[in-house]
Amino acid sequence: MSLATYQDELLPAIEAALQAAVQPAQLTNAQSPQELLNMLRYHMGWEGEGAGPKASGKRVRPTLVLLSAAAAGADWRRALPAAAAVEILHNFSLIHDDIQDNSEQRRGRPTVWAKWGMPQAINAGDTLFALAHMALEGLSETTSDAAYIQAARLLPRTSLQLTQGQYLDLAYETMPHITADDYWPMIWGKTGALIAACVRIGALVGGALGAALKAYMVFGEKLGLAFQVHDDLLGIWGNPDAMGKSAHTDLLSGKKSLPVLYALQQEGEFARGWRAGVTAENVDALAEQLEAEGAREYTQQQAEKLTQEAIDALHAANPQPEPGAALAELAEELGRREV
Amino acid sequence: MSLATYQDELLPAIEAALQAAVQPAQLTNAQSPQELLNMLRYHMGWEGEGAGPKASGKRVRPTLVLLSAAAAGADWRRALPAAAAVEILHNFSLIHDDIQDNSEQRRGRPTVWAKWGMPQAINAGDTLFALAHMALEGLSETTSDAAYIQAARLLPRTSLQLTQGQYLDLAYETMPHITADDYWPMIWGKTGALIAACVRIGALVGGALGAALKAYMVFGEKLGLAFQVHDDLLGIWGNPDAMGKSAHTDLLSGKKSLPVLYALQQEGEFARGWRAGVTAENVDALAEQLEAEGAREYTQQQAEKLTQEAIDALHAANPQPEPGAALAELAEELGRREV
Repeated sequence: MSLATYQDELLPAIEAALQAAVQPAQLTNAQSPQELLNMLRYHMGWEGEGAGPKASGKRVRPTLVLLSAAAAGADWRRALPAAAAVEILHNFSLIHDDIQDNSEQRRGRPTVWAKWGMPQAINAGDTLFALAHMALEGLSETTSDAAYIQAARLLPRTSLQLTQGQYLDLAYETMPHITADDYWPMIWGKTGALIAACVRIGALVGGALGAALKAYMVFGEKLGLAFQVHDDLLGIWGNPDAMGKSAHTDLLSGKKSLPVLYALQQEGEFARGWRAGVTAENVDALAEQLEAEGAREYTQQQAEKLTQEAIDALHAANPQPEPGAALAELAEELGRREV
Repeated sequence: MSLATYQDELLPAIEAALQAAVQPAQLTNAQSPQELLNMLRYHMGWEGEGAGPKASGKRVRPTLVLLSAAAAGADWRRALPAAAAVEILHNFSLIHDDIQDNSEQRRGRPTVWAKWGMPQAINAGDTLFALAHMALEGLSETTSDAAYIQAARLLPRTSLQLTQGQYLDLAYETMPHITADDYWPMIWGKTGALIAACVRIGALVGGALGAALKAYMVFGEKLGLAFQVHDDLLGIWGNPDAMGKSAHTDLLSGKKSLPVLYALQQEGEFARGWRAGVTAENVDALAEQLEAEGAREYTQQQAEKLTQEAIDALHAANPQPEPGAALAELAEELGRREV
């Protein structure tokens, strides 16, 4: 069964679990403000202008939860509450990210704060944060107590790692002397930890123990880092039409992404130009210079190395053949993605 | 044992539990950003200019948890993890509130966003949200599984109610036709739900069941509403020096608090003046007019009525005499408070 065949089965189930989790009885009773729910449903890509799969995103994280559960030996349906929880947690962080980064567009549509204003957008993110914890509770009925308790402990710890990574990402913007050494703890918190948690929770639901569980954890950790490094490539050289935002975003916003840190360390022409200031006028030339100084190739190599290490760890976990192959295919596909 | 005697014992224990919960191992390891912890410790009132009990606030919510546990028959120390969790949750919401309301001062000090900027303040609030959930886990070691599981389910549901109330509070600012009927669901979410949860979790830890548990819940619900109604009085007629913010705050910010809604319904001189616009020049006169139209007295009566209903419910719960008396004293004191 290929990844695509799995996805045909998984994605509708993920969407149904998400829809149920984002509108629990408490948010749909007579006294509850309908517009708050509308904001959440808009952000999740279910309604409003431009609603649809493109607005929802690829649901990479819940897919990882379900495939990991299947790879470790469980019916993937048992992991659905966790799949919903991690995707809702991810979307809480996106709503807040967009405010923090002053981003008016996501996936080709206005962001929540651009539509409803900053105060309501902060609150909409907080609402998803609470809903993520509620969604996970379903796991207490679909899996062992041990797996549920470990997953329930992992969720707030992963949230804490998200906020630690986000702290660093924001702080680095105004710190002049950030190096590649500072980069890895930042992306580990910002992106790696949640992707690692997806694989770990899936493997726990699947009943993985000991060396196998550890191998799944390494798979998740390497995959999470590879995902962010590839994201750094897309943030500078991604196709703006495909991504639904403007080109060279990360250069214009001053983000200390891996290609930038690599080139700053070279102290060459890019470093001088970047320090003098990135503008709409010089950004194309700076992106070309960055590539000429080898930053794109270096970053690409890092992403490929991490993806390969992830796949090696996955094999060491001795997964069930079909979901294991689909997980490896997903890892490779993420390393080639254009959005 | 009077409330003051209890507080001498409880408050240092609450502060110690909070300090441990706000800096778990994960936030204090070598890779973790120290400045994120500094932001949290500043907000909690433990460090920075003006640190001390006044900057920390009165710790009303954790005190309610502990006294309710004692009233229902447990050693209050068993409820300490929950006491820390609710106070951290409350402080998450304060950090975000201050951004949403554009408030530069809290308890006489600059707010987190005023010191560190809006993006980092959103993130600091998110960090406390995660830490609140982690703090509650300690309850699994100090109380019965049943009480712990119910408390763990209550925390995200209470967070969801907070965000529903906050949605309404923000939305009402720009809605012209809000009435006193719209007021109660808003303050229930914004303030009532968390205070009610404090009493309920405490009573659960104390082992309250059936009619007694229900009576504690009514006590918490009425007390939570009374607390916010009294807060509405302070938001207009509070002593600005004691509160550490400017006078008539709620009039200047356009908040639809209970006195304002009462007077708008009279359609008298206050309503005309308020609709024409509140300014630094006319705010003193408007506050006087509001009082002359009976809004202060009406609001005071509502607060007193709710406080009395709370105390009646507390007696119906048949609490242990000493902590029960301290809880009643706390309810009365909250109804007389000046900050």
